[in-house]
Amino acid sequence: MHWKLTLTYDGTPFNGWQIQPNLPTVQGTLANAIHHITGESVLPQGSGRTDAGVHALAQVATFSITVSIPAPNLHRALNRALPTSIRVLSVEAVPEDFHARHSAQRKTYEYRILPGDRICSPMLAPYVWPCRFSLDLKVLQQAATHVLGTHDFSSFAANDPDQAARNASEPTDLPIDNVRTIYHSAWHEQQDLLIYRVTGSGFLHHMVRNLVGTFVEAASNRISPDEIPTILAAHNRSAAGPTAPASGLFLVEVEY
Amino acid sequence: MHWKLTLTYDGTPFNGWQIQPNLPTVQGTLANAIHHITGESVLPQGSGRTDAGVHALAQVATFSITVSIPAPNLHRALNRALPTSIRVLSVEAVPEDFHARHSAQRKTYEYRILPGDRICSPMLAPYVWPCRFSLDLKVLQQAATHVLGTHDFSSFAANDPDQAARNASEPTDLPIDNVRTIYHSAWHEQQDLLIYRVTGSGFLHHMVRNLVGTFVEAASNRISPDEIPTILAAHNRSAAGPTAPASGLFLVEVEY
Repeated sequence: MHWKLTLTYDGTPFNGWQIQPNLPTVQGTLANAIHHITGESVLPQGSGRTDAGVHALAQVATFSITVSIPAPNLHRALNRALPTSIRVLSVEAVPEDFHARHSAQRKTYEYRILPGDRICSPMLAPYVWPCRFSLDLKVLQQAATHVLGTHDFSSFAANDPDQAARNASEPTDLPIDNVRTIYHSAWHEQQDLLIYRVTGSGFLHHMVRNLVGTFVEAASNRISPDEIPTILAAHNRSAAGPTAPASGLFLVEVEY
Repeated sequence: MHWKLTLTYDGTPFNGWQIQPNLPTVQGTLANAIHHITGESVLPQGSGRTDAGVHALAQVATFSITVSIPAPNLHRALNRALPTSIRVLSVEAVPEDFHARHSAQRKTYEYRILPGDRICSPMLAPYVWPCRFSLDLKVLQQAATHVLGTHDFSSFAANDPDQAARNASEPTDLPIDNVRTIYHSAWHEQQDLLIYRVTGSGFLHHMVRNLVGTFVEAASNRISPDEIPTILAAHNRSAAGPTAPASGLFLVEVEY
């Protein structure tokens, strides 16, 4: 039986999604729970990796097990076996060729900033970037609009020595280049927070965090928001701003 | 100089307030921060202990240092030295005879329950009791009213082998007995949560969590809310309900 899980997790206690020896990871914790329930050793595939400290409101994972178990029972058993930092929101039997990563069409992320020099509640700190600058929402919005559409996002991709190896070892339906399409890119205010919501065909490593870091450069008057097209055209990571912290980032939705 | 700090902390990463060797505690972390700033070794005194996993929106601590430092500078330096799980909300120079615990007149706690069998968000789980029962707010309220006024709360005090030793080693202005006065005791609903707010002259070890555990017994129809006076009169811990989990409890205010 081939299963699709929708998961939410608090990234704080994990060293990211991807399984690593002797470190708590979401993928490893989920594999342990599946083994605990079924006795089978499988590695669930996620829609993509999330880095250490990044959260998910709805990550998707797929895996196959041979034991037969009704979906509601698997759902309950998983939530009993998992720590409260990971919750399974839904369990669905899917065709064998459905793959959490290869089948994904669009992904949505949110990034949450607590701006200004107010004191950040310890209960909020793991879920925001407490950014000291006071930020102009209109400028954030103006900057965010420039990345809509199809672009080569090399300037916003991590300078990641492992990336080439990753691309080679992990075949994907997305082209092995840095061109992505952004369908939605907008900021809004919610209570004390500034929230960026972005939907795209896919995202490069650190791409959302590098976009946010660059938008904040604009909103704190260190670059003009209208420099974003020039930064995109440079195809060079050093043209863009710094990487925003992991804590503010949430994977919100994966569409298939 | 004698200082009064008002602190907020996330209890999740700490083994409670009280300093312990080789374990992360709020008191120990604060002492380290003061030492880092001033070079002086002092043990800040809290308004009371909070157990492992219990949070504070406004804990109060006092300590004396010989170095002279303006309050705003001490405030900034402490928040730079402390982890984001502890924030200093205010810093105030106070007379030498002001003591965080001995001078306290009233304390307020809040307890937050997520009732019913809905899935508890991992981002909310450290800050609530995800209680599986569906609870009747009116019954919770009826039960809570019975503890208003001055009572011997022995039935709601932890059966704590260390308690006698603690009472002996920690002189307090409160009588070394189990009589306390409750000024406010009420439940309200806020979004999905049921919230208990209680103000009293002081609280015994586990008292709020034992009250909540007993109110929940009533609200889930296992006892009648009108049994609370009988439970109080028993002066016996085994007459009351179980201890509610630490995660739902917040120290909200200490009045002087």
